[in-house]
Amino acid sequence: MYYVGVDIGGKNVKMGIVDDFGKILSSMTYKTLPERGYDAILLEIIANINNLCEEAGLYMDDISGIGIGVPGICNSRVGLVMSCSNLNWKGVELANDIKNLTNKPCKVCNDANCAALGEQRFGSGRNYKNLVFITLGTGIGSGIIIDGKLFEGLGCAGAEAGHMGICVDGLQCDCGNKGCWESYASSSAFVRQTKEAVQKNPDSILAEVCKDGISGKSAFIAAKQGDKTAKKLIEKYIDYVTYGLIGLTNILHPQAFIVGGGIANEGAPLILPVKKKLNEYIDNNGFYPYVDVVGAKLGNNAGFLGAAALVM
Amino acid sequence: MYYVGVDIGGKNVKMGIVDDFGKILSSMTYKTLPERGYDAILLEIIANINNLCEEAGLYMDDISGIGIGVPGICNSRVGLVMSCSNLNWKGVELANDIKNLTNKPCKVCNDANCAALGEQRFGSGRNYKNLVFITLGTGIGSGIIIDGKLFEGLGCAGAEAGHMGICVDGLQCDCGNKGCWESYASSSAFVRQTKEAVQKNPDSILAEVCKDGISGKSAFIAAKQGDKTAKKLIEKYIDYVTYGLIGLTNILHPQAFIVGGGIANEGAPLILPVKKKLNEYIDNNGFYPYVDVVGAKLGNNAGFLGAAALVM
Repeated sequence: MYYVGVDIGGKNVKMGIVDDFGKILSSMTYKTLPERGYDAILLEIIANINNLCEEAGLYMDDISGIGIGVPGICNSRVGLVMSCSNLNWKGVELANDIKNLTNKPCKVCNDANCAALGEQRFGSGRNYKNLVFITLGTGIGSGIIIDGKLFEGLGCAGAEAGHMGICVDGLQCDCGNKGCWESYASSSAFVRQTKEAVQKNPDSILAEVCKDGISGKSAFIAAKQGDKTAKKLIEKYIDYVTYGLIGLTNILHPQAFIVGGGIANEGAPLILPVKKKLNEYIDNNGFYPYVDVVGAKLGNNAGFLGAAALVM
Repeated sequence: MYYVGVDIGGKNVKMGIVDDFGKILSSMTYKTLPERGYDAILLEIIANINNLCEEAGLYMDDISGIGIGVPGICNSRVGLVMSCSNLNWKGVELANDIKNLTNKPCKVCNDANCAALGEQRFGSGRNYKNLVFITLGTGIGSGIIIDGKLFEGLGCAGAEAGHMGICVDGLQCDCGNKGCWESYASSSAFVRQTKEAVQKNPDSILAEVCKDGISGKSAFIAAKQGDKTAKKLIEKYIDYVTYGLIGLTNILHPQAFIVGGGIANEGAPLILPVKKKLNEYIDNNGFYPYVDVVGAKLGNNAGFLGAAALVM
């Protein structure tokens, strides 16, 4: 059977036709242009489903369902996008609208949840039925899979691990809470920490590396050159990431954490120490099973693959 | 149908015969005396099942199963008590042993999980299929119910919310983590905070109240008399409790938190401000459903009632 997965981002829409094994038959990426409004975006999605079918040698009749990921607050049970500031959508009945226009089953879900499902079905999480997906980006997105199914909590309001507090008197977050995990362990937080380290250590290799601009990679580049400032910075960041995973482990004890987002591309220098620290902690207890920590594998395709999996 | 529930504590064993509606037909409490060893405790439980049957006018044949709660690390899927320091048990096949001695189905589970199940089936959680039970005691015990069933995580190692970290550079915990929630929001933590407040404010009403001994109640007594030190202390404690619940809400978004443990007996002065603060936070978002916060109802019976529910 064939399914359409759509990942609507603030900047780009990525979509594709996928089979039951996650094989991508055709796919495309184009600008979202949210300023043109909901209807225009919707109609272009429908038009592009037809285009993708043609490219894949399929008819619209061959499509069993359409799944859509949205970077906002969704109630996936009723197919409603409650709020999506990136797209300026509020209370739109996206699943119903797509259903009415295509006569196909349609499901809608938060984009991080879609990515979690994508990695679990077709990516790094394929060996696990119970996992937590974490994406270290501007904030920390998360998705929870329990017994092979997305767990979203009441009103689909759960799986927001980025706003778990790790510092009771810590940094104020827009969500209203203080010391949210994402204020310390997101990619943006790491860039902020890098900036602070550069200011405090203007003679470090890190400062030299950052002369032409600071990114999440700067510290890793400087650390490879033996810079102590960068190494200390990365170590502290690894502590922040691990601290949140320890919290999640004490609550959910999943089989694995799948870590995605730009900074996760650093791979081994980030993932391995986090995995080691987490399991050293678990080992203190002596009776609890190890938890795997692996990098995400599907990159930008995780979202639409997971969206397609919503209707499989 | 009739079931036996047993709650083995470090000090006392509580057990009872329960029907499908949580009605207690007969029950008893007696000293555990862990120093006499595993076999003696086991045989006394079997003997007392017979006694409870007699008291309830039942035969052993009328009993459909036996559920047991243990204050330690259990793998409920295989019926193993991996470790229980209070009883000095390690790797005991409790469920199998009871099964062999009684020829009845037997399940074993951590005591906080049993209490969670008890409150959900027969107590404050009866209206909810998704809840988190929290007991504020020496530490913070917790149990998670998802879709009406206990959620325990891989190897039954989850639902240890007391060890979710809320203070990344905070107090060292025996578990190996720093800043565990229970180091700030357990009853013992509150007593420690009360002691510190008394030392800093020797002229307060609180200091006066504590002259004959400090307990979790001292601050509530002083606050009722208008003491500012006590009020500030309680306010900070309420912040700690709420901070952990916000973390759990961002991950699980349950329908309700059921709060038990000695200090929860303070009732409204503790529960209502926590509920208000939590839902003010949820309200910031504007789209997420409220979460109820209610006191536990079954007191010391929650454990054996929940243990019985394991085999219903």
